[in-house]
Amino acid sequence: MINETTLRVRYSETDQMGVVYYANYLVWMEVGRTNLIRECGITYKELESKGYILPVVYVVGKYLKPSYYDDEIVVQSALMETTLSKIRIGYKIYRTSENGRELVFVGLTDLVFMDAKSGKVVKMPEFFREAVKISETEEYKSFVEDVEKTLKV
Amino acid sequence: MINETTLRVRYSETDQMGVVYYANYLVWMEVGRTNLIRECGITYKELESKGYILPVVYVVGKYLKPSYYDDEIVVQSALMETTLSKIRIGYKIYRTSENGRELVFVGLTDLVFMDAKSGKVVKMPEFFREAVKISETEEYKSFVEDVEKTLKV
Amino acid sequence: MINETTLRVRYSETDQMGVVYYANYLVWMEVGRTNLIRECGITYKELESKGYILPVVYVVGKYLKPSYYDDEIVVQSALMETTLSKIRIGYKIYRTSENGRELVFVGLTDLVFMDAKSGKVVKMPEFFREAVKISETEEYKSFVEDVEKTLKV
Amino acid sequence: MINETTLRVRYSETDQMGVVYYANYLVWMEVGRTNLIRECGITYKELESKGYILPVVYVVGKYLKPSYYDDEIVVQSALMETTLSKIRIGYKIYRTSENGRELVFVGLTDLVFMDAKSGKVVKMPEFFREAVKISETEEYKSFVEDVEKTLKV
Repeated sequence: MINETTLRVRYSETDQMGVVYYANYLVWMEVGRTNLIRECGITYKELESKGYILPVVYVVGKYLKPSYYDDEIVVQSALMETTLSKIRIGYKIYRTSENGRELVFVGLTDLVFMDAKSGKVVKMPEFFREAVKISETEEYKSFVEDVEKTLKV
Repeated sequence: MINETTLRVRYSETDQMGVVYYANYLVWMEVGRTNLIRECGITYKELESKGYILPVVYVVGKYLKPSYYDDEIVVQSALMETTLSKIRIGYKIYRTSENGRELVFVGLTDLVFMDAKSGKVVKMPEFFREAVKISETEEYKSFVEDVEKTLKV
Repeated sequence: MINETTLRVRYSETDQMGVVYYANYLVWMEVGRTNLIRECGITYKELESKGYILPVVYVVGKYLKPSYYDDEIVVQSALMETTLSKIRIGYKIYRTSENGRELVFVGLTDLVFMDAKSGKVVKMPEFFREAVKISETEEYKSFVEDVEKTLKV
Repeated sequence: MINETTLRVRYSETDQMGVVYYANYLVWMEVGRTNLIRECGITYKELESKGYILPVVYVVGKYLKPSYYDDEIVVQSALMETTLSKIRIGYKIYRTSENGRELVFVGLTDLVFMDAKSGKVVKMPEFFREAVKISETEEYKSFVEDVEKTLKV
């Protein structure tokens, strides 16, 4: 499944270069994956209320083009991989212009399941593994390929 | 006591107007009051570890002049008032230019002591009240007067 | 006119108190007024492209209750006052809970029209004054009254 | 040369997990590289005033351990590579605890020289290339090796 989340660039997200500040793409990836998980029937909030946290342990991002104040932004995110206690999520971020969608950023994040109290790595809970099952559509495969090729991972 | 905290404007704090984004002055006020409290011999961290939180319930800010990327900023902060469970802190924020200090922002925040668990308002703890005693120097009085006059409170 | 803008609390907007960090309400006010102006038929982007900037010169905010990660937030904003070169916008911010809307924040901002190049205060441009005409509905009047009473301005 | 920049974690930089939010490490890398360039005798501000911008086009980050509110943070940054119009900067970020420095984050960013007006990639200006000359000390070599090994680049 590929989640699509739409948002609009806030003034606070620009910098004096007149474009979106680079750290804000990480905020947008987080907004995207929150909705990706929600679309799977789980909320990140629930996950925390069950005693898990899911911190990011690795991030890669490639900035292809700038995005601007008031742009409509589309964040596509999809689960790329799961291991025992880790998940990799990929992202393609677009700005919408008169000429259609323009790809501005490609990224990925690795997140690890941890016990909120002890801070120790734990196994991905079963209800999560079942909810996020990867469905191997053509669209999905080409998304993952794109992210991997762009980021050379 | 008037605490002086120096910081340098980060690129992330600017916006496309080429100046510091207005919400960041609230972040700087927070940095200032953290150091004000520290200078009184308490850390905010300690306060939280003792079960208190101290959220802001009221803020007023007047933006006199812009400040810019890489500016050296001085945040002056001082306790203006305490009541049973509330404290008012005042702030004067300067940028340092070739011509000396230029006042760019005047603000105040009211903060309330709460129990972290219940979220209920509680009395200011005795160790805090003792630590932050107001010393009525001339400099201090004129600081408070300045803040009050500028903000008309 | 009262604009209503809906947004969802981002993880990045929380702090270790487990609630939304206080400076982020200023970001939300900005998102609200951007849409308020857009609803009047102008975009802030246009305004800038015509050589104007509209910086905030004064802000007041009252924090009534906390808001939380993943909350649905409604920002109501309305023009309260215009003078020769200044506008005052008022805001009521709600979180949506099972029990309906809960008012969490009331604020106002004063913004001043400036020439982008010179940084000098200028008269509000005629096309803006015409677009934002205040329509004195009952709902509007009670909104303004609420903001003024809460903030004692 | 390895620049060391010290900063203290702001309350605004934490999230409800009780640790520093992941995007803020990108802000700290920016603070670090600003000072690295300054230590070379150039300010980023100058660079912009000469008509250059230096946007980030690629970022990699590995989060090894959390960092916390009020922690003293040390950002080490060093130039790893230059090509015709691109520079790669590496970062090691530490928190200071009773037990000394603890490595919490390793990252790198690629930045590209662009003409501010046209937005086109340009050659690194000669004055920059001369200022940042890489001096191959042992300490420097082991820094670069560490970053490369940790990030597998």
